[in-house]
Amino acid sequence: MTDQDKARERPRLVALTMDLIERRGAAVDRSVVATEAGLSRARIEAIFPEEGDLIDAIIEQWYAPDIVIMEEVLESDLPIQRRFYEFYARRFERDLARFQSDPATYALYVELGEAHFEQVRGYIDLADHYLTVLISEAQGEGYFAGLSIDRALTLINQMVACYVSPQMMLILSDKLALNKLAAIIDTLFAGLSGEDGGALGVNTLRIAT
Amino acid sequence: MTDQDKARERPRLVALTMDLIERRGAAVDRSVVATEAGLSRARIEAIFPEEGDLIDAIIEQWYAPDIVIMEEVLESDLPIQRRFYEFYARRFERDLARFQSDPATYALYVELGEAHFEQVRGYIDLADHYLTVLISEAQGEGYFAGLSIDRALTLINQMVACYVSPQMMLILSDKLALNKLAAIIDTLFAGLSGEDGGALGVNTLRIAT
Repeated sequence: MTDQDKARERPRLVALTMDLIERRGAAVDRSVVATEAGLSRARIEAIFPEEGDLIDAIIEQWYAPDIVIMEEVLESDLPIQRRFYEFYARRFERDLARFQSDPATYALYVELGEAHFEQVRGYIDLADHYLTVLISEAQGEGYFAGLSIDRALTLINQMVACYVSPQMMLILSDKLALNKLAAIIDTLFAGLSGEDGGALGVNTLRIAT
Repeated sequence: MTDQDKARERPRLVALTMDLIERRGAAVDRSVVATEAGLSRARIEAIFPEEGDLIDAIIEQWYAPDIVIMEEVLESDLPIQRRFYEFYARRFERDLARFQSDPATYALYVELGEAHFEQVRGYIDLADHYLTVLISEAQGEGYFAGLSIDRALTLINQMVACYVSPQMMLILSDKLALNKLAAIIDTLFAGLSGEDGGALGVNTLRIAT
């Protein structure tokens, strides 16, 4: 089997695997995929030497469109607020559609991701990298003043978590909406800075008399 | 068995049940609790007529300190930003300690809550009610202008979700910190309003040339 053959077979087998997962409602391993694809054990092992390679390929396939979205948004010439919004909105819309079309399968992929978090971590880091670029541009325009990029990153990640976390999608999908996401982005641009607004005061709690 | 006897036995049996769950790392039912407590089946059924009554009692026990915290914060005479912060910070600190002392047992309670979400829902609604009171006071001081209380409630809930959601605790505990929570509350007070900041623009995305 040439490398070219492998490269051609790989996406077909990933698509077949994801189709099997959706139809069975359960994760499948290489031997099941080989049987369904009419391939020998040796053949599938030439393409996916380890069980983990098949899982990597599924996770890669799951996130590939998100990477395209993020790159498109970064390269666009929209105002910075709009780019922040689109950075989240487009991925959220796609994820919501995926969830709504089959919540049980979606939950299965969330479980798969949790069980192989090391592979998922790479995509989270990549999204963080892209967000860092956006934050840096926003700071160039005077937003998020007085915050290091890392600090702005962690705060923004937490405030927008509901629109990114697949676990939150499972719990909250009916409460999530694009106009709320927009209001959150607007709030960040209007209010996020390194200034102390007084929430973390030194006065301790006592009962009003 | 008098009602007074039942009222006295109930908390002891709930504490025993929670202790059993922690030691075994698995949910337990009434028959296990009866055996461990040296009670007859009839006796435990007099106190918890249905299996669900035992679960209700556990969930009640889990949330009871949160209700005390929220009521104390509401009745305190701190500035409104500080009250918002304490409203979340005190419950988060308690929850973090509970998570850190035994992550596996914590995950077990999260599962229990997910499986009996109807009972949990009542506590979420109660927290929403308390938050509504705080929002209304903040609006009286000019914050969150131009938003209905319900709208402010859903936006705040989403922006602070990482510090309230037990599911996020399981995923993100190492990224959560009181000084970040304070920065998020400050951001809300500085930036959350009904004003359109331009995130949800009408211009569509195109690639910069």
